[in-house]
Amino acid sequence: MLVLAFDTSTSRGSLALLADDRILAEYTLESPASYLNRLLVGIEQLFTDTGRSRQEVGLIVVSAGPGNLTGLRLGLATAKGLALALGCPVVAINTLDALAANFPWSSLPICAILDAKKQEVYAALYHCQHGAAVRQSEYLLLHPVALTGYIQAATILTGPGLERYGAMFQELFGSKAVLPPPELRLVRASVLARLGQIRLAAGQVPDLDRLTPFYLRPADAEIKRPVDAGFGGQK
Amino acid sequence: MLVLAFDTSTSRGSLALLADDRILAEYTLESPASYLNRLLVGIEQLFTDTGRSRQEVGLIVVSAGPGNLTGLRLGLATAKGLALALGCPVVAINTLDALAANFPWSSLPICAILDAKKQEVYAALYHCQHGAAVRQSEYLLLHPVALTGYIQAATILTGPGLERYGAMFQELFGSKAVLPPPELRLVRASVLARLGQIRLAAGQVPDLDRLTPFYLRPADAEIKRPVDAGFGGQK
Repeated sequence: MLVLAFDTSTSRGSLALLADDRILAEYTLESPASYLNRLLVGIEQLFTDTGRSRQEVGLIVVSAGPGNLTGLRLGLATAKGLALALGCPVVAINTLDALAANFPWSSLPICAILDAKKQEVYAALYHCQHGAAVRQSEYLLLHPVALTGYIQAATILTGPGLERYGAMFQELFGSKAVLPPPELRLVRASVLARLGQIRLAAGQVPDLDRLTPFYLRPADAEIKRPVDAGFGGQK
Repeated sequence: MLVLAFDTSTSRGSLALLADDRILAEYTLESPASYLNRLLVGIEQLFTDTGRSRQEVGLIVVSAGPGNLTGLRLGLATAKGLALALGCPVVAINTLDALAANFPWSSLPICAILDAKKQEVYAALYHCQHGAAVRQSEYLLLHPVALTGYIQAATILTGPGLERYGAMFQELFGSKAVLPPPELRLVRASVLARLGQIRLAAGQVPDLDRLTPFYLRPADAEIKRPVDAGFGGQK
């Protein structure tokens, strides 16, 4: 069974095609604007490069968020469209969980961090147990300085949130801030695929119409729109 | 400074382009034959997709081996050609070291394993210290069963060698065999880039003509050729 996975939640897009647990291809590319435009092209490329057929796909896995809301909506919409056409299920994985899953046997606790803009970050804390990162906190939306209350000991701080806040965390947390190399800070589509397969095996597959982006605050559009304004206030 | 890295040592090719420690793009694709044919095309694609120029490349990093000898020779030759044209250095990283570097904070020892064909494997053992996998053994070439002498405690067994021998190791070593998920068993071009940058910073850059594949046994062609045969025995 082929598993198609893609992440559109951050400033790097990632796409992967797996045959069960064999990674046939994985492509990761920076730059969200061009990447979102190229999502369908990239998916086509996966099938062309591997010589496999879309009809073999038995599972689609996407990132649920938190993250870039436009990216998440586009990713989920694309996944649902493909799933309807191919008759296969879709599983959405929390983006912070996918980041922590890059460190399955870490001796240190892990804090996954995404830039939430507006001087806030999305974050969650994990401990490794038997080769899996197990979440120890709520999914948080907070000012980066407020993470101070959560970092008690040397902790792997990971995720694209470090590109903006890594230096600040090193100053705030000193030797407690353990920053991993860049290739382990990415959301990998192959990691989404693995976590999605675990969900499928556990029978945790939602109905397509219940799949919505996971975000911890209302979208700007919802904040700005008066409650009774109808179609963008054009009444 | 751009860093171009590629791995051609295993049955998956991997290519990456970084701006210092920022991963601009990374592509990993199974199937060695088609991949080797596509190495130059893939490198071109990296520059096209990222909108960057070859002239910005300040370092090329390749895998030194052990691994597929044809792939290693082609990878090194391509790297040297590019380096001559661009006037930049080349660093070659041991493939087993690159595999172990996927687990920088592992609480368990690591054994990196590559299929050496002829019922042998290449292997080396590592412990993590301060976020780096430090080699604890020689680079080994041995029958997979002979690894028994080296696996004393629960150990992460990693690398493409598991595709053929993973089941055998689980039987041989029982609960001491800890097999990582597939996305952490790959040689990642982004990991080569990181290790190569460390070498460059330490001034450990060899002359181009001293760069040769690292392999632990003579190539078939050398074994089959009589010592005094000259050009393939055509004398």
